Parts: sequence; C-alpha cells; structure tokens
Amino acid sequence: MPQTENFYLHDIPLDQAWQRFNAALADAGLDGVLGSEEADLAENLIGRVTAEPIWALTSSPNYHSAAMDGFALRSEAIHNAMPTAPVTLVVGDQAAYVDTGDPLPEWANAVVPIENIEPLDAQGELTPEARTPAQIRLRAALPPWSHVRPMGEDIVATQLILPSGHVLRPVDLGAVAASGHKSIRIAKKPKVAILPTGTELVPPGSQLQRGDIIEYNSLVLAGQVLGWGGEPQRFGIIPDNFDQILKKVRSTAENHDLILLNAGSSAGAEDFSARVIAALGQVLVHGVAVRPGHPVILGLVRRQDGQQVPIIGVPGYPVSAALTGEIFVEPLLARWTGRPSAQPLETEAFITRKVTSPAGDDDYLRVVVGRVGARMLAAPLARGAGVITSLVRADGLVILPRGTQGIEAGSSVHVRLYNPPAELERTIFAIGSHDVTLDVLAQYLATRGRRLVSANVGSQGGLVALRRGEAHLAGCHLLDPVTGDYNLAAVRQYLTGQNIRIYGWVGREQGLMVHRGNPKGITGLIDLARPKLTYVNRQRGAGTRVLLDFHLAKLGIHPDQITGYDAEEFTHLAVAAAVTSGRGDCGLGIPAAAQALGLDFIPLFHEQYDLIVPSAFADDPLLAPLMDAMADDGFKQQVAALPGYDVTRIGKLIANLDLRELPGEKK
Amino acid sequence: MPQTENFYLHDIPLDQAWQRFNAALADAGLDGVLGSEEADLAENLIGRVTAEPIWALTSSPNYHSAAMDGFALRSEAIHNAMPTAPVTLVVGDQAAYVDTGDPLPEWANAVVPIENIEPLDAQGELTPEARTPAQIRLRAALPPWSHVRPMGEDIVATQLILPSGHVLRPVDLGAVAASGHKSIRIAKKPKVAILPTGTELVPPGSQLQRGDIIEYNSLVLAGQVLGWGGEPQRFGIIPDNFDQILKKVRSTAENHDLILLNAGSSAGAEDFSARVIAALGQVLVHGVAVRPGHPVILGLVRRQDGQQVPIIGVPGYPVSAALTGEIFVEPLLARWTGRPSAQPLETEAFITRKVTSPAGDDDYLRVVVGRVGARMLAAPLARGAGVITSLVRADGLVILPRGTQGIEAGSSVHVRLYNPPAELERTIFAIGSHDVTLDVLAQYLATRGRRLVSANVGSQGGLVALRRGEAHLAGCHLLDPVTGDYNLAAVRQYLTGQNIRIYGWVGREQGLMVHRGNPKGITGLIDLARPKLTYVNRQRGAGTRVLLDFHLAKLGIHPDQITGYDAEEFTHLAVAAAVTSGRGDCGLGIPAAAQALGLDFIPLFHEQYDLIVPSAFADDPLLAPLMDAMADDGFKQQVAALPGYDVTRIGKLIANLDLRELPGEKK
Repeated sequence: MPQTENFYLHDIPLDQAWQRFNAALADAGLDGVLGSEEADLAENLIGRVTAEPIWALTSSPNYHSAAMDGFALRSEAIHNAMPTAPVTLVVGDQAAYVDTGDPLPEWANAVVPIENIEPLDAQGELTPEARTPAQIRLRAALPPWSHVRPMGEDIVATQLILPSGHVLRPVDLGAVAASGHKSIRIAKKPKVAILPTGTELVPPGSQLQRGDIIEYNSLVLAGQVLGWGGEPQRFGIIPDNFDQILKKVRSTAENHDLILLNAGSSAGAEDFSARVIAALGQVLVHGVAVRPGHPVILGLVRRQDGQQVPIIGVPGYPVSAALTGEIFVEPLLARWTGRPSAQPLETEAFITRKVTSPAGDDDYLRVVVGRVGARMLAAPLARGAGVITSLVRADGLVILPRGTQGIEAGSSVHVRLYNPPAELERTIFAIGSHDVTLDVLAQYLATRGRRLVSANVGSQGGLVALRRGEAHLAGCHLLDPVTGDYNLAAVRQYLTGQNIRIYGWVGREQGLMVHRGNPKGITGLIDLARPKLTYVNRQRGAGTRVLLDFHLAKLGIHPDQITGYDAEEFTHLAVAAAVTSGRGDCGLGIPAAAQALGLDFIPLFHEQYDLIVPSAFADDPLLAPLMDAMADDGFKQQVAALPGYDVTRIGKLIANLDLRELPGEKK
Repeated sequence: MPQTENFYLHDIPLDQAWQRFNAALADAGLDGVLGSEEADLAENLIGRVTAEPIWALTSSPNYHSAAMDGFALRSEAIHNAMPTAPVTLVVGDQAAYVDTGDPLPEWANAVVPIENIEPLDAQGELTPEARTPAQIRLRAALPPWSHVRPMGEDIVATQLILPSGHVLRPVDLGAVAASGHKSIRIAKKPKVAILPTGTELVPPGSQLQRGDIIEYNSLVLAGQVLGWGGEPQRFGIIPDNFDQILKKVRSTAENHDLILLNAGSSAGAEDFSARVIAALGQVLVHGVAVRPGHPVILGLVRRQDGQQVPIIGVPGYPVSAALTGEIFVEPLLARWTGRPSAQPLETEAFITRKVTSPAGDDDYLRVVVGRVGARMLAAPLARGAGVITSLVRADGLVILPRGTQGIEAGSSVHVRLYNPPAELERTIFAIGSHDVTLDVLAQYLATRGRRLVSANVGSQGGLVALRRGEAHLAGCHLLDPVTGDYNLAAVRQYLTGQNIRIYGWVGREQGLMVHRGNPKGITGLIDLARPKLTYVNRQRGAGTRVLLDFHLAKLGIHPDQITGYDAEEFTHLAVAAAVTSGRGDCGLGIPAAAQALGLDFIPLFHEQYDLIVPSAFADDPLLAPLMDAMADDGFKQQVAALPGYDVTRIGKLIANLDLRELPGEKK
C-alpha cells in the first residue's frame, strides 16, 4: 500500500519502487500513450513516434513507369531483332519517347534505352535527333517489362508502411509521403515541469557569494527530457519554503504531465518535497536503494479536476539527479510516447581498480573505457554524487547490483555505454603525475580525433599503471636523489620487462604557493617547520612529494615538525584550492596552479617532467597525434605561454630503454 | 582539374570525387568550421557543437561544504571521544548546525552527521531539539575533513571542462554551468537549401493524376540535414525549366551555405542541374561510381559578393537521394560544425543470397539483419534505387567495393548499421508465402517488442529458407494433390532432419481478381484459355501457383494456352496491381488483395494457410508474442475483419513432426 505520511527515507529496491509506481500509474490511467496529434509531414517529425500504424493509401509508383530515358514499345514488335536483322519502328504508332519516370503508354510493355536505338528520319536515314526521330531502328530483342518500374514496385496500396510506436527517421517520412499521406498521427510530447528549489541556489553565471550554489540540475533534466521526446519547461528557483513550493507544484500540475521537483527530496530540515507531495496527493515511494540517487520520491498529485499527475522528487546532488532521469524519467517518457525504452549498448571491459560497494544498494559506477593494447579497460571515476564531471567524462556505467559488496581489480564487467564503441577506440589513457599542460594537450588531441583521459595518481602511480598495462603513457617527474637525474632510475625500477621510451615534455618550476601578498612572510621550505604554519601536502608517490622529502632531508627537517604533512591532496590544483580556501598557508606546486587560483608563488626548484611511453604504444597510430603535438610549434607556443614552463625539451627522445629480460635471464 | 563544361556523366571513384570537392572547398575557404555564435545555456543546446574549449571560470564547490546534515566542528576537539568517554561541545562556540551543501564555518574542519550526536540542553540533559540543542555529546572521534566536500572536489577553476568540437549532451550543460559559464560559443548551424525540381512532381497528399510523382526527397533530405546539425529550408517544387532553376539557385545561394538541387542531375533531356551549376559557377564532379546514386553532381556557385557556395546535384531516385545525403552531406556538415563525422556501428553477418554487383562501382546493398538460431543473418532487400521502403526496412548497408563482382550466399559481410544491435535481436524472420494478415501480425508484434520481417518468396521458398536455417517461420499453403491435405507432405519432403510444428493460421478464399464490373465476363479458370485474355501468374513454388496448376490439370488446360502464364509476380498484391494497371485481365489470389486495389473477386477455392515453425524457435522467447497473438481474441477479430478469412484454426497445433533421422539411419 502506498504510504502517504512517511517523510522519512526508507529505501526500497528499484524493482519494488517501479512496481508501486506502475500500479499507481495504472490506477490513474497513465500507463499508456498519453495522447496523439495529427502532424503534417512538413513539420519536423524526426524522432517523433507514430501513434497508429500507417497503411499505404496509394501505390508507388502508381503507374508503370519508364526506368530509363528511351523509347516505350511492345516487346513483341522487336522479338526478332538481331544485329544483322534490325527492326524499324515508327515513332508515334509503335514507339514513343519517354524520360525516366514517365508513365509507360498503356499499349507499351517495355522501354529500350536511348543509347540502344538508331534514330532515323522519315526516309530511313540516320538523324542526330536522338529524342525526336521519325523512326527508330533496333538490333536486339527485349523481354517484356524491361526497363520498366512496375506499378507498386516500391509500395502497394494497403500495405503496412510503419507500425505504431515507431520512432521516425528521415527515410520514414519519405515512405509515408510516397504512400499517399500528407499528415500522420503521432504521440503527443509529454509536458514536463522542472521545478528547482533551494534558498542557496543562484542561476548560472551569477557572481558567487559564499554558500551560493549554481542551479544547473534543471538544465541537465531539461536536456534529458528533450532528448527522450518530452517537452521540458524550466521554472525559476523556488526558495526552501513549504507554502511557495506547494503553490508552484499545485499550479504546474494543472498543465503538465509530469513534475520534476528538484532537491528537498531527502529528510532534512529544509526538505519539503515529501510534505508538499503528501499535501497535494500521495507519496508512493520515498527512497530507492540505488547509489547515487537514493533519496528519490515517487508520487502523484491531484489536479482540480481530479486527474492525477505523477511527480518525482529528484535528489539535489547532480549525479543523483541525472541518474534519476535515466532510471525513472526515460522509461516513463518512452511509455507515454509509445516507443521502446532506450536500450544502451553494452561492452565488456576489465575494471582497473578494486571497488567496494554498499551491499544494500544498486551501485552506479561511472567509468572511462578504452583499449590499452589488447584489453578493453574500464577505469572508475570519482564516485561522489556531487561530481557532475564524472558523468561528463564517463563512457558508461557499471552497475553493481544489490547484494554485491564490490569487485576486485581485473574483474570483467558489463559497461552500459553512453558513448559509441568507436569513440572508445580513440581514447588515450594518461595516468600519472598531474600537470596543467595535459589539459592543453587534451584540447589539441580532441581536434584530431583523440580523447585524452588523464588520471592523476602521481608519478609513481603512473609507472605502476604502465606496469599493469593500464595506460598508454605516464607523466613523470621523479628525482633520483643519488644521481640528480629525473625518471631514468624509477623507470628502470618499475618497468623491468618492457621496452620504454622517455620523451621530454616540459621543464617547470616548483615552488611554494602562498596567499596573495604572502601574509605569513614565507621564503622557503625552512619555514614549514614554523609551529603556526599549516602545510598542504601531496600524496605519497607524487613527484612533488619526492621533491619535498628530498629537500626536507637536506635541510634536516623531520615531517613531524610540519603541521598538515599528513593531509594529502592529489593534484597541484587541489593543493592550490586548499590554500585558497584557507585550509592551509602554503603548498609545494607549480606556478600555473598558483596563477589559476590567484595565489602568489615563491619559485624554489627547476624540474623535468617527461612522458613515459611503452615503445609499442609510441609507434601505434592511436598516439600519432601526440607525436604530432610534440613536433608542432603552435602547440609548444601554447604551452610556453603558461607561467613557469620551458618547452625546449618537448618531444626530445631522452631514452629508449629495452628493459626486457634476455632469454637467459628468465625466471 | 575541375571540368566546367561536361554535361555528360563520367563516373569517377568516390575518393577521387571527394579529393576534387575538398580541394575546391579549401580554395574557397570552406573546409573548416563555418562560424560560431554565443548561446545561452538556457537555449536548447543538446546536439550543438562547442566552437571553443571551455575552461572552468570557478571551482565547484567553490567553498568547503557540508556533505551531510549535522554539526560542523574541529576534528581535534573530539579526538579523544569514545563510547565510554563522550565529549560534549557547546553549540555556537565549538559546533554549528549545517545542512547538506552549507558552507563549512571557516574555523571548522569536519562534519558529524546528525544521527551520530546526542543533543543536550544547557543543563546537559538530553533534548528532542536535534537541530537546535545548546550542546552536543559525541562518542566517537572523526578524522579531519570527514563529511566535507572540499572546495574544487568536482571542478577546479581553469581546468578544461569540454574541448572544442564536442557534441553537447545534457550532463555537459550541467558541468559548463557549474564551472561558472552562462553562455558558450557554439558552431553555427549551416543553412542548407533544398530545391526540388521536376515538372512531374506534386506535393505530398495530392490527388494523383497519371504521371504525377509525389515529391518527398526534400522531406528525407531535410530530416537528414536536421539530424546532422544543419538548418534545412525546403523550397517549393520548381518545374523542369533552365531559367527558373537558375534563378532559384542564384537567389538561394545568397543566404545559404549549401544547396541541394534535387533531380535533374543526370544527363537526360530534362536534366538541367549541371548546366545551371556551370552557368553560375563550376561543375567539379558529374558522376560518382556508387550504386545507387551515381549521377551526383558536386559543384560551386558564386554569390554576388564573390563568395562561393557548394551545391550538390542530388539524384532523383529516393534511395540515391538518401545515400547521397549520407555520403556527401553528412561529412560536410560534420566538418562545418567541427564535430567528428558519424561512425556507424558495424556488425558481421552471413548474407543469405548470392548478390551480383557492378565491378566498376561501390555497391550499397540494403539488408535486414537478425539472428536465426546461432547465426546473425543479413538478408538483402530490393535493390532498385526507386524503392524507398528498402531503406525503411533496412537495418544497415553492406558495401561491396569497386572491383568486387558480387558475393556468394553464406559469405560473411560487414554491415554498417542503421539500427542499434539490440533491435536486431528482436527480429522475427518470416520467409515464405505472402498473406496480408502478416501485416496485421507485424503491427501486433511491433507493439510487443518484436519486428516481423517478411520476405515473400512463396510457400516452397519458405520451406527452403527453413531448411537453410534462414527463417524463424514460414507461411505455407501447399496443396498435396494426392491427399488433398495442406502442407504436411511438403514439410516432410523439405524439412527432413528437423523438428517441426505446423500451426494453423487462416483459412482463406482463393479466386480470380478481375477488373471492376468484370468487363470480360470471367467465370472461372476455364476462361483463362480464351485467346484475347491475359492472365497474371504467380512464381513457381508459390502455393497459389500450385493451386492453379492443380486445377488447370484437372480441367485439361495446358499452360501454353494461357497468355501471360510466363510473366510471374511474387505477391497477391503485385498480381492485383498488375490487373489494376491493365497489364492483365485477371489473376488468381486472395480477396483482401482484390479489395485493396479496388478489383472484383470471383471466389473459387478454399485453402489452408499455416505457419511452419521449427520447434526450437516455437519455444524461444523471441516468438512468444507470436504465440500470444494466436491466443488473442482481439487479434483474431482484426484478422477476421479482412475479407475472405476464417480464423477458427489460428493457433491450432496441426502437427508436431519429428523429422530428425534416428541414430541408425544416419548416412
């Protein structure tokens, strides 16, 4: 039974949620096509859905027609014609000129192509008037109905042209018109109201104050609704106020088929959705066992005329909101327009990391998919429900069903694809140290048919990924404290057994990012030991961390002396963001990151950042545009324009290391 | 070099045609993105293409924010808290209530979820005011940054959000807005003029006169242009008149980026396209070695300001026109909007028939694809360039490249898919005798997730298809002259080795279809021997042909006595169409076909039309909706409403034949 007064989340499995929703929709008469309308073929009907089967009104062609330019005649008249015994026909009585598509004269039963006749004048002499001769001479017989398109060749009146529930494509419109229709009945577009609520919300492009959140879920939901055949209407932001939300839901219910009430679907102090829906109708489901997206509400509100209108309380986190669209809105719009629900393509891939998952929920994991060598890999993206960029970057979803507690690295998984398989073959995985020049490279590659997917796991992490065959290349800046060289020692250590090239990428400055104006008067690493100063560190394995630890040791500073040493960030920009936000006073990083977030920069060291590329990938056409970039002066100039970069080493083959074991050395 | 004065077709290979076209486009400065415009995110931007890379203007979240409803505090303050040694904090000084998404107070570094605190009043007593207590008591420590979404978790200012040339999806709009943008630069939609020409053309829905052709290519081309990101404009029909066509091309060139001049692209008397293009600019290519679609023209016309505008002379046959769109217009629109060109999905399948192909051309074969048993099959559709329904029914294209003279039945082919692979798995192949009830069945199945593909090859042809494993079922009405039974003898003869079920389908009348009013006074088969009467026959192997031959033999009529006996049609409707068009006086067939085309019907015989289904398929979930149809009274009523049908036997299991060889009988 529907629960109407439960404002507390109680997650139920997805299939049970749909069962309850379906039963209520059926009761309300809302489980089929919502309605149809007559539409002229000249309107834009691509993607619309036929509401009735379309039967041919007429045949096509609707007469026998000439399939070539030539002369219509009766086959019998020339059945004895031979090269040595031509037959001559009088034009008018026995033959008639026809263009392709012309109706065949009723007395004719074949067409001889114009290039196969000899045009003659009235005296029987050859004439240049190929189309208007007095007579024609033929030197070959022709079976009846040669070069004739018979009536009904394409379409016979009364045949089925399209079934109902068919999504219209361009060629369909042609066939429908050819079969005699000028207009057809199509399913109405369901009208979907999208109501963003939240006192903290501001419209896109607003000057942000602390605490403001840009309202963009309505853009995502509207785009989804449009793509799924609905007619979205976005409303303005409603503050967290029960009466205002109730008033708006009540009025939009009057002229919409579905309401998406965004945020306030949970059970917090400011979450009014469930209370509003209960006041105007009933809450059927409050909480579905899916992550992200569990605090979803399914309900019905009542119009003044008694008709019920479905309403979905959409969670506020953007990934939850978008997935709620996929899980609930798409199937509903499919049913209401009569088309089959979307069938995502699937592919198999190997998951690159161990993933743990709440056993009680269906877990929707966003992954990037690409081929590295012979294997198709799925790399999990950030899992937070607040990370919309995880959906932007995702090639698809891996669904870990309820009852699963996770999967091991290397397991084979089904991926429900967002992107076409061809796109996956264009993916270059760059896993390793983060550098802002990789974004410049990503843009360069995007215009050349490649997609750079970079995961920031630090220099050592990148070498480990290469060792595991999970990346095409790794950005790396690992100082060898013994030799003072970069990367060579680490590559030899991590990539034994492989054939590896090291390409120079950039020389770059490392230094301390500090608040603008340097209020703490920081001058170098020596200041990190000050008791009142908080440092923002990078994770173990990051080249910047290695650099820090190397210089701390030289200075004789012990990590215990540094406040914040244990709180790790994974990118230069994250360190800069931590400083900007006041979480720390300084962090070691690159000038571009400091500049990006408006910090001051105290230069301390120069270092080499290289690209480590297995030779097999370096020679693969997939990476050819990367090789092009390294030889492209325009690209180098773009990189050089970033602060603190030296591009003289870009593309230089620093080392070509054959680290494969010799046969005698095999273990 | 471009040829400007050649109005005769001279087919060149596709790659050469593109080379010429590309060189000319580059000369005219038309080989890149045509232009960009600023667009607000609130406009419908789904499917539009970014014209510039989009870099984040702001971080998201742009402050540290609470990830749960609860109390913000400093982690250090409770680092000793334990179940047995709780810590109490004063709300206000040491803790502050926050809702999910609220900014973290600057002094705080963690959030404890509300369900993990004990709310106390000022006196230290438990209070029900969970959100507004005077103090809170905690019984567990919490690491710093617990339940906090750090600034930049999703987006860090300056990072790359989307590259240029990216086709916008709903989630992209969310990320773009989240990164601080209100509007973005997108590629302009290329404006495409579609000019239909032809004196014989009439608009859709016109009352057709003999010789009229419905103009629908412009609907197909406009739909294609729209789907590929262009802005189509359809113009009215222009008669075949050089001056009128020239005038219209000249004026549309002034405000369009591309002109599609439909028909008149060949070299016939009424083909003005090449002459018009030469008069206003230059013809670059006239004829491309592709079938269908070879008489295509690629050219440029000049605006008054000197700017050149590409023009494509699109062939008139509808399949040629649609393929010209795919081959030339799609790549051009992709380049002009900066997106990658469409990458069709491909699948492998076995071709069911031998196909011959012109060696000099790339041959675009339309195929239906579906799985029968373990094999994915591609069944070639009608090959005529005039058969638009072949594109409607096609799941994809098999391209037989130049230099190939054809392929043998059973060869493996690549299919470039129009339909998603999931759809192929829903295909039921019905190959055999034609009956109009199969169209009623097709509509029934379409609403139940199945697609019925029927090929009409006659009853025997259907049994041969079953023997070859190329169909799921066959419609069959083969009279056994010896027993007077239907189908049993033929199934035993053709399907040795299989396990077969015969389901009753319909009883139907067979009789002579004659012109309305029966002007020739035909009464029965005995009249077919009349010298002045022309008969329209069915092909060998058709049940109707077997029926005819059986009764002719009984009447002592020899086929030589019958005019038209040798001209074979493949369906009842085609026979009816042949009679309607005057090509014959009568033909044996079913009343529904006669009624469909307005013919009179002289009933002669009753016959049984059954469905022959291999047992393995009969039990397959794929065919379950067919079994449902046979048990569905509503469906039976629809069939019974057609003239001349008896539905009492629908769904009756007539025979369950195990024709597999016993082990001892194996050869």
